[in-house]
Amino acid sequence: MDVYISGVGMTKFGRSKDPLEKMMAEAASSALKEAQLEKVDAIYMGVMNVEEFVGDSNFATLLADTLGLTGIPSTRVETASSSGAGAFETAFYAVASGHMKHVLVLAGEKMTHLPTAKTTRILSEAIDRSERRYGATMPALAAMIAQKYAREFNLSLLKLEDILAQVAIKNHSNGYFNVYAQFRKIITKEDYLKSQMVAYPLRLYDCAPITDGASAIILTSQSTPIKVSGIGHATDTAAVRHRASFTSFNSTKEAALKAYTMAQLNPSDVQFAEVHDAFTLFEIIGTEDLGFFPPGEGWKALEKGISHLRGKLPINPSGGLKARGHPVGASGLAQLVEIVYQLRGEAGRERQLERAEIGLAQSTGGLGNNNLVTILERNDRKRIMTEGWSPDYHPSISVLKKSYVSPPSEGIGILETFTTLYATPEGFLSPLTLGFVKTEGGEIVMACNPDYRSPKELKMGKKVYLKTREGLYVFEKLTLWNRLKHWFKKQPKNN
Amino acid sequence: MDVYISGVGMTKFGRSKDPLEKMMAEAASSALKEAQLEKVDAIYMGVMNVEEFVGDSNFATLLADTLGLTGIPSTRVETASSSGAGAFETAFYAVASGHMKHVLVLAGEKMTHLPTAKTTRILSEAIDRSERRYGATMPALAAMIAQKYAREFNLSLLKLEDILAQVAIKNHSNGYFNVYAQFRKIITKEDYLKSQMVAYPLRLYDCAPITDGASAIILTSQSTPIKVSGIGHATDTAAVRHRASFTSFNSTKEAALKAYTMAQLNPSDVQFAEVHDAFTLFEIIGTEDLGFFPPGEGWKALEKGISHLRGKLPINPSGGLKARGHPVGASGLAQLVEIVYQLRGEAGRERQLERAEIGLAQSTGGLGNNNLVTILERNDRKRIMTEGWSPDYHPSISVLKKSYVSPPSEGIGILETFTTLYATPEGFLSPLTLGFVKTEGGEIVMACNPDYRSPKELKMGKKVYLKTREGLYVFEKLTLWNRLKHWFKKQPKNN
Repeated sequence: MDVYISGVGMTKFGRSKDPLEKMMAEAASSALKEAQLEKVDAIYMGVMNVEEFVGDSNFATLLADTLGLTGIPSTRVETASSSGAGAFETAFYAVASGHMKHVLVLAGEKMTHLPTAKTTRILSEAIDRSERRYGATMPALAAMIAQKYAREFNLSLLKLEDILAQVAIKNHSNGYFNVYAQFRKIITKEDYLKSQMVAYPLRLYDCAPITDGASAIILTSQSTPIKVSGIGHATDTAAVRHRASFTSFNSTKEAALKAYTMAQLNPSDVQFAEVHDAFTLFEIIGTEDLGFFPPGEGWKALEKGISHLRGKLPINPSGGLKARGHPVGASGLAQLVEIVYQLRGEAGRERQLERAEIGLAQSTGGLGNNNLVTILERNDRKRIMTEGWSPDYHPSISVLKKSYVSPPSEGIGILETFTTLYATPEGFLSPLTLGFVKTEGGEIVMACNPDYRSPKELKMGKKVYLKTREGLYVFEKLTLWNRLKHWFKKQPKNN
Repeated sequence: MDVYISGVGMTKFGRSKDPLEKMMAEAASSALKEAQLEKVDAIYMGVMNVEEFVGDSNFATLLADTLGLTGIPSTRVETASSSGAGAFETAFYAVASGHMKHVLVLAGEKMTHLPTAKTTRILSEAIDRSERRYGATMPALAAMIAQKYAREFNLSLLKLEDILAQVAIKNHSNGYFNVYAQFRKIITKEDYLKSQMVAYPLRLYDCAPITDGASAIILTSQSTPIKVSGIGHATDTAAVRHRASFTSFNSTKEAALKAYTMAQLNPSDVQFAEVHDAFTLFEIIGTEDLGFFPPGEGWKALEKGISHLRGKLPINPSGGLKARGHPVGASGLAQLVEIVYQLRGEAGRERQLERAEIGLAQSTGGLGNNNLVTILERNDRKRIMTEGWSPDYHPSISVLKKSYVSPPSEGIGILETFTTLYATPEGFLSPLTLGFVKTEGGEIVMACNPDYRSPKELKMGKKVYLKTREGLYVFEKLTLWNRLKHWFKKQPKNN
């Protein structure tokens, strides 16, 4: 059964004094009004971590009660920072099954009331335990990916900086015109360069902000002008270091493949997209993973103006997570609300795109390991679906064969990538230098270095000495003494 | 599209040293083996509060990774203590939509590693904030309901005690034969009476225990011997005091009505049931709400042996939450695993029921406000479905019209029900006396009483004096002084 959208709504994103359920009720009320409904058959609601951000559980019930809809089923759905998109997908199947006619999808998060170090710690709980215990945060891992990206595609750090600044500038410029956006200010390269370093080489302007907000969509089995054409959802390893590639996300690629196949659309059919730019580089990687641009070339679209608001393939016309804001659970659904506004021609004079018949949203859960891709389309586009159709999209999805060999506790390794983290989570001192080190056995381990105070002293691809201290891997400069110690250890033992 | 079950699995419930994901992987692995599958199209997994019990978020991803199923969609579903049943329902729609063929439903919780006061506090977060701030816990509210039940149906507290003991004795007796049960010991009335008071009049043996455990089911679109016949899901007000009745749950009744209607079955067709006996009385209320027995008469079925293992309508042949244990997120799915074992004739010589073609599970989320009813059936029963069929089940579902009049801060009220709580959550002194007081305006408020040390001093239906202290309602004995103060306040003011 086909599924359509009959109403959308969202709150202004930013800092709110309202409790979470009130924000979500505000978004729901707009969506219900648009759909001309007073009741729905069920509520599916996405929040990432209402338990720790707000201190409540059983939130789905509270929401139904707040909305005056007590009685109907209400279910909470969570896929980390893609929970809004996850709730949408779940509701999609409920309607597609024919068991439900009208379903309210709601998403939200309240985050700004907590100290930043606490929020950082809560968000870090989505990271694999073995990486989180080193103090790794989302920005830390994103920074390590950014350095790796520069190295893999031969970009100088100066060039990388320029690319990332361009993403921030573009998205702030788009957000300037979005009445729902948290930040409505134009920023310059100078502003970007002045913003504080969060996790080298990522600055504050590379990271989506901490935000309160809510979004809502009504799904229905009755035909409306907006159709849900394709949905894909995929996971990746919990630990980033267990992946074959650090510079693209399998989870986006597998999700996109499913979404394109269901929609019978090619990447080239997509006219605009909302891409999960929790970090500036992730927008670029996202557009590569979605098949819009070849790997390592996504940034050229920025330079050529392709991904700009008036470009051929506008990316994040809403301002993205960067400027609209990122209430983690709400973002995935807010992307879809933006797409609906664009498809309906209601995005406002400044932001309304000329070509807006097919829009795609890509939402990332965790550090690229619970991702969803959703394609919405104007229902007045006439097309014929063909059995066995497959898209012109052939992403390389490589998986690391899990190694169960425990790496040696001391030895020489290669520093694959690293970061110096300045905004550490609760319980960790700043700055904190973290790296991925490839051991001689070929396994990659997370390691910290308590000595390096400046990231300029380190170089990717260089040999380091790896040891363990209090159950953690520590890497340090490869001294003559270390080399000797290592050489002696490797000698066969004489009895 | 019809949905079937092709595999089930569960861990032994109890105290486990394994991390949660390992327990869930163990359950999943049995289910996958039974279904002869190595891969599925998606995972839906129910946990109630992995954030606070375990300290992780993004758990759906971790699970896919742990299972070696990285890549496929993995979604966490939460409906408080019915999350296992909620995940099952969500997965049901995914398969029923035709978009998925084989789906793994997983549920689990790890709770025993924390101090009891902390666990109690975490579980209490599922309670409405306005009731939770008084220190109300699940046992406290259940105890208030138990007292009300006794009063409404003219049972002496001695009689109530005897009834509740019988539920505990029956379920422990069933659990004795269940290899998956946390408690495999026969208990006597004497044991029951010796068990400590948790929340007057409920004792430790009235409350489901704190448990670690996991359960798994594979849903499939291919015909198998076990069919999912009906599913219903409904919510109720977040606050217990906002309900028209304290002695039955609308959410069970509305969910049951949907499930019976979908399955085209009457309550009298059900041959056995797993009922959410988080508290002994809730089993009795559950069997009334499900239409098995008239309101206030569920306990007679116990006395007549109807709900016993060899009775006409066995309730909780597994031992129920009471004896099998209650890892909150896992219980709703574990009930369904038990039903599958019974339908297949695999429950073991001692527990296997003679009539086991149609089984029903009722799972409660929160304090009776996010409930699911699921009916499973042997697929070899031939029957014809009729359009517009409606069940012989007409529950009374009454809703309180929300009053927005703020009750007076001081005045005379009626003590509707109360409890003295001995196992208080983190941050509250024990004992703690809590009650629902009906104000002269007809509104019911939660109130505490710091003075009463023994519940024997209080009587339901008696007048009390209500005042506010530090933003909380406090009730106390109605003294002559209070009466006078109240009378003076009520006099019209002279200028």
